[in-house]
Amino acid sequence: MPKINADRLLADLRHLRSIGAVDNGVVRPAFSEEDMEARRWLKAQYEAAGLEATIDGVGNVLGRSPNAGTALLIGSHSDTQPTGGWLDGALGVVYGLEVTRALREDPETRHLAVDAVSLQDEESRFFGCMGSRSLCGFFTPEMEADAQDKDGVLLSDALRDAGLRDAPRIQLDRERYLGFLEAHIEQGPHLEEDGLGIGVVTSIVGLGGLRLKFDGQQNHAGTTMMAIRKDASAALYALANAINEEFPKVAGERSVWTMGRAVIEPGAASIVPGYAELDLQYRDKSTEVLDAFEATVSRLIDEINARGGAKITSEPARVRVAPAHMDEGFRRHLAVAAQKNTGEMWTEMPSGAFHDAGVISEFMPCAMLFIPSIGGISHDFAEDSHDDDIALGCQVLADAAASILGE
Amino acid sequence: MPKINADRLLADLRHLRSIGAVDNGVVRPAFSEEDMEARRWLKAQYEAAGLEATIDGVGNVLGRSPNAGTALLIGSHSDTQPTGGWLDGALGVVYGLEVTRALREDPETRHLAVDAVSLQDEESRFFGCMGSRSLCGFFTPEMEADAQDKDGVLLSDALRDAGLRDAPRIQLDRERYLGFLEAHIEQGPHLEEDGLGIGVVTSIVGLGGLRLKFDGQQNHAGTTMMAIRKDASAALYALANAINEEFPKVAGERSVWTMGRAVIEPGAASIVPGYAELDLQYRDKSTEVLDAFEATVSRLIDEINARGGAKITSEPARVRVAPAHMDEGFRRHLAVAAQKNTGEMWTEMPSGAFHDAGVISEFMPCAMLFIPSIGGISHDFAEDSHDDDIALGCQVLADAAASILGE
Repeated sequence: MPKINADRLLADLRHLRSIGAVDNGVVRPAFSEEDMEARRWLKAQYEAAGLEATIDGVGNVLGRSPNAGTALLIGSHSDTQPTGGWLDGALGVVYGLEVTRALREDPETRHLAVDAVSLQDEESRFFGCMGSRSLCGFFTPEMEADAQDKDGVLLSDALRDAGLRDAPRIQLDRERYLGFLEAHIEQGPHLEEDGLGIGVVTSIVGLGGLRLKFDGQQNHAGTTMMAIRKDASAALYALANAINEEFPKVAGERSVWTMGRAVIEPGAASIVPGYAELDLQYRDKSTEVLDAFEATVSRLIDEINARGGAKITSEPARVRVAPAHMDEGFRRHLAVAAQKNTGEMWTEMPSGAFHDAGVISEFMPCAMLFIPSIGGISHDFAEDSHDDDIALGCQVLADAAASILGE
Repeated sequence: MPKINADRLLADLRHLRSIGAVDNGVVRPAFSEEDMEARRWLKAQYEAAGLEATIDGVGNVLGRSPNAGTALLIGSHSDTQPTGGWLDGALGVVYGLEVTRALREDPETRHLAVDAVSLQDEESRFFGCMGSRSLCGFFTPEMEADAQDKDGVLLSDALRDAGLRDAPRIQLDRERYLGFLEAHIEQGPHLEEDGLGIGVVTSIVGLGGLRLKFDGQQNHAGTTMMAIRKDASAALYALANAINEEFPKVAGERSVWTMGRAVIEPGAASIVPGYAELDLQYRDKSTEVLDAFEATVSRLIDEINARGGAKITSEPARVRVAPAHMDEGFRRHLAVAAQKNTGEMWTEMPSGAFHDAGVISEFMPCAMLFIPSIGGISHDFAEDSHDDDIALGCQVLADAAASILGE
């Protein structure tokens, strides 16, 4: 069986962190200079590992194995959150690279075909999982047309500035692949709390999002009597608080919802705000719960609009993602490899976070593997995992890839 | 009696609008390039009107009359809100200029001493009413030390960039002055609704402000269960909504409160916010109501903090301003002049907005005159008044100034 090289793996992960490093974290949002530098570096590593590598027209880096036979695709994303951790995405990308190297170095597995990939914009600067959507043929012209980041930068301008405007976009050949494997840090506390080394993912929660808009009348905060105000901020505070009070009544056991972005305009203490925006995101493993959340928001909007004041409207902030089930055959291989490498110190678990495998599972079979996050912290510069856990996860993934392809 | 020149007055107002004009409004915040250009232009106009003019070390433009005798100070502020109207402040500044010219052109009043002033940063970019506070000796080193705008620009850097670091700061000589007269647009709908041309201000409401801070734990919006979150935004929405529900129970008839600035960090839809800030401002003519508002906020903070989650703290966002009463003697002169110029079409009224006269009234007698605002709109590019009302207000102010000084 193949043997991964832990020192090489960790050295590559640390080099990748150095591109955009801030404190222990990374600032490498999709299409930034640092992101493109990281992608060029990954392309060179794929080539050094014997893969035929390309950066495609949305920034995906794909390294194709020259070996014959049906292939596995292994990887994740190398773009980060605005203030990202160093392992979120990067871990799975470098695992893909290291697994191809380990298989190539073992005479028994060097004939197997593993493609490595770094997907683009999983973190939703312009459009969440843009890279995996594009590879699967799911990234439509409608999605692309008006895409812009939160500062108003257009996707089309970002593609041009990254030098990608004329680069071909790759669509995966379904016949080539058995499926896709993605490893990731857990981004939650469960593995660490239970002293486990590996999580084999059963399903990825679905998620939806709404952008709520509040149209009021900007005016002077001293002379405009309360009774006649159309204060956009007051409507936002009322709706946001009502959502936090009402959602628990329809939520599932592991439902989560977040209103992490609110903008009040013009944003001065002595001006009654004329306009505001609020982003709401909600996740659950059940489509029925996601539907119930959306119905609740509609009802609350109607109730608050009926009071007068600023007018609230709602539109989808993103494409609804259905809950995704991981392939049972792949999961059995991952379980065998986890059992071999950890003894009993692994578990099956759902993924509360969304991942590219949630998109790709609508195109071909997928499976995911988690390693522990220290303190459960993610999307933060403080995100980290222990070196031993990082090495262990890569070995489990290499073993599973070899056994899937060897069947 | 002096006769103001309406064409000259309107031409000067329109020229002042042209410095920083956007649509029908103006963007001329304190110490911006446009603000300083406007102040240099005003200084030249003061000099052309026979005044000895200076831009002092905080940006106040003061034009001193060379005439003997006790003087009146007349003016307002020429800085604007971030998206300001063209008359807010500017009207009272150009009235001061025009009244000095009209008195100088009339043989019966040319011996009278009127000083004209454009005060700095009434609109609180760095520190509300900084200019009038400084002129009265109320702008302390403590207020100045940490002053910064909402983008984090330090006042000390803004003063340096405006070339004011080494300019002397003027403090008014109390012995020189009878008092201060300030004219302003109403910024509310009452005069227009009642078909009146002039409002003689009886008092200026007091105001206070709090900056509320929410310290939570930034984390991943998918993997962090609701029960263990410390979501800064959730605490903000809860407190802001509770304030809007509880304040009416202790408010006065004309109380107003506003939460026009909220900042959620890091501000992404898929990150549980770790930090947030909310600015609360409240106004009433009664000190007791202002006290009741602050006690209510303290109680609500304690209640929400007791639930766990993000921790809320509160600090004064500005110096509490006590309600200010206008000088009865000055008010009688304004009433006589209003009666003479409008017949019965004037009224006495409180000011819901704060003004520099509210600061200066703690130093010497003050009075204020309002003219109608079209639609009651202010702090907005759409702010406007009719030319006839603008001319009428200036004539009333000139008549009142002449009669006060002629006593």
